[in-house]
Amino acid sequence: MNWIVIMAGGSGERFWPLSRRAQPKQLQAIVTKRTMIQETVARVRPLVPMARMVVVTNREQAAMVRKQLPGLRHLLIEPVGRNTAPCCAWAAAYVAQRDPAAVMAVLPADAHINDVARYRVVLSSALDLAARRDVLVTIGIRATRPATSYGYVRLGEPLGAGFWQARQFVEKPDLARAEEFVASGEYRWNAGMFVWNATAIRAAFLKHAPKIWKTIRHAKSVPAVYPKLEKISVDYAVMEKADNVVVANGDFDWDDVGDWPALARHLPADAAGNVVRGEFYGVDASDNVVVSLPGHAVAALGVKDLVIVHTRDATLICPKSEAQRVRDVVKKLAEDRQGRRLV
Amino acid sequence: MNWIVIMAGGSGERFWPLSRRAQPKQLQAIVTKRTMIQETVARVRPLVPMARMVVVTNREQAAMVRKQLPGLRHLLIEPVGRNTAPCCAWAAAYVAQRDPAAVMAVLPADAHINDVARYRVVLSSALDLAARRDVLVTIGIRATRPATSYGYVRLGEPLGAGFWQARQFVEKPDLARAEEFVASGEYRWNAGMFVWNATAIRAAFLKHAPKIWKTIRHAKSVPAVYPKLEKISVDYAVMEKADNVVVANGDFDWDDVGDWPALARHLPADAAGNVVRGEFYGVDASDNVVVSLPGHAVAALGVKDLVIVHTRDATLICPKSEAQRVRDVVKKLAEDRQGRRLV
Repeated sequence: MNWIVIMAGGSGERFWPLSRRAQPKQLQAIVTKRTMIQETVARVRPLVPMARMVVVTNREQAAMVRKQLPGLRHLLIEPVGRNTAPCCAWAAAYVAQRDPAAVMAVLPADAHINDVARYRVVLSSALDLAARRDVLVTIGIRATRPATSYGYVRLGEPLGAGFWQARQFVEKPDLARAEEFVASGEYRWNAGMFVWNATAIRAAFLKHAPKIWKTIRHAKSVPAVYPKLEKISVDYAVMEKADNVVVANGDFDWDDVGDWPALARHLPADAAGNVVRGEFYGVDASDNVVVSLPGHAVAALGVKDLVIVHTRDATLICPKSEAQRVRDVVKKLAEDRQGRRLV
Repeated sequence: MNWIVIMAGGSGERFWPLSRRAQPKQLQAIVTKRTMIQETVARVRPLVPMARMVVVTNREQAAMVRKQLPGLRHLLIEPVGRNTAPCCAWAAAYVAQRDPAAVMAVLPADAHINDVARYRVVLSSALDLAARRDVLVTIGIRATRPATSYGYVRLGEPLGAGFWQARQFVEKPDLARAEEFVASGEYRWNAGMFVWNATAIRAAFLKHAPKIWKTIRHAKSVPAVYPKLEKISVDYAVMEKADNVVVANGDFDWDDVGDWPALARHLPADAAGNVVRGEFYGVDASDNVVVSLPGHAVAALGVKDLVIVHTRDATLICPKSEAQRVRDVVKKLAEDRQGRRLV
């Protein structure tokens, strides 16, 4: 049967101050009125019932995940973050134990997709393929701009019906290479959405990352052994090494909404180019991204290209061009006796 | 006997969002932990008892003035603002009725002074002079920088004991003229602090602005006639025309703290030049003026020379160089159906 595994362990630091350790990006309503994990679940609900959805998260976020997804029956709580390879292995072993013939889609909790209808068609066909064949499917998103914050996958031989063999995974490129990739038409974004059956993923782990698989499989308590596992991504540990990787034709929009300025790709701008969520008054203020809580207004005078985010206990101001460095602010706060509470 | 008249009718729009109509700059703790009007009263308390202090304010601010100055016995409430001439005339007539031999100092409620000891000496000597002679004293502040936001008064013949005849009042000059004024040593800032006895101010009004004086003096109810009075400053209506104006040697620091960047003249800066009231975390952030309420932190990344002010229901961001234009924001808010509540 089909299962969905949602990876929801990210810290979402680049969305501070809205995102906090106990309620990071995936548990926040960033783009729509539902939180990103709620959107992720809603997107796949027509394909898989709640009873076959698994969420992997951490101790800090677990309570909020339960609250946001009241029907959830399978919640795996990592005692420490170990990147996606241990997470995928644990989820795969957990699902296989309940359903040895399971086919599963592994999805990040924090991406935004507009064309949900097309997304469901692609995901369904990938689940169908993985039910018939022992392959590792990655959904390759059509690259619509030369993004340097995503990994890419190069297409190999077409397999028909919207699938290709994967030829090569490429880490985040520089702008020049990203432009080549987009121009060539041969590359797709590797969006971290994977589909495989229980047998195929077991075999792949046993071949390419046997220690992770065996440690989890033979543990009396997975949380107890988890801290010993290697911190490594499933891309690096398995996908890049496997020879049975298939790319599905992800011809829908997809955005991991990686920082505050990314909001501008999803929300309408006012006449001066300001993208606003909340109450905003601008005087000679243009091209800003402004987020404020209900009941609180932001007024900007004579500023351009800023990110301004107000929450109950903290406000952030930075240029859009520096938005990736919000992590440095979070780091500074974490190291501060008084600031620690805001992380 | 000596009286103090405190003019507290300003709207303080340049200190929005802290300053609001019902609680503007003079009723806010801008520089110290006490509000500016509380500081003004504390400054003169050793000279004049509470029973001889008069505050002139407006309807919106009256309740808060009473709250902040619990011992106050004389509160004049202007039904509409008419600038300082009607205000001075009303206060003078009010005081003269209770004490025909009164000597009074008229002081704005919203200036900051560090050297309070010296201030008291100067004010005392001005009150003494005005008790002996029918003159109009303005306290001329030693000009320590070529300010273009203040009016100036040119010194005439020295009268001895720290007084000069006033030679000429000059409106706010441009920078070049302000620099000349400072270099010459002949000019002082006209700080809007005046001292006179009841007879002298009555005579001056009767000579230079008789309509204002007579309307107030003969009114059954001053508030009823107040809206009919000319909107004019006491400088323009009386001081600039009178030939018995004396300048006192205001050789203490004085600052009307005209906008948010002026805070930098009174609060210490951190290593990066940020002037902060409240909780602030800066990463590559320099020379900003940051004000935040207790319990709320402001984090700034990669920004310079900004004013950032957080209050419970509104946050302002603007370059320091634009801080005078905060009035435009207030205007925009006042015209907005939703924003109106924030003014």
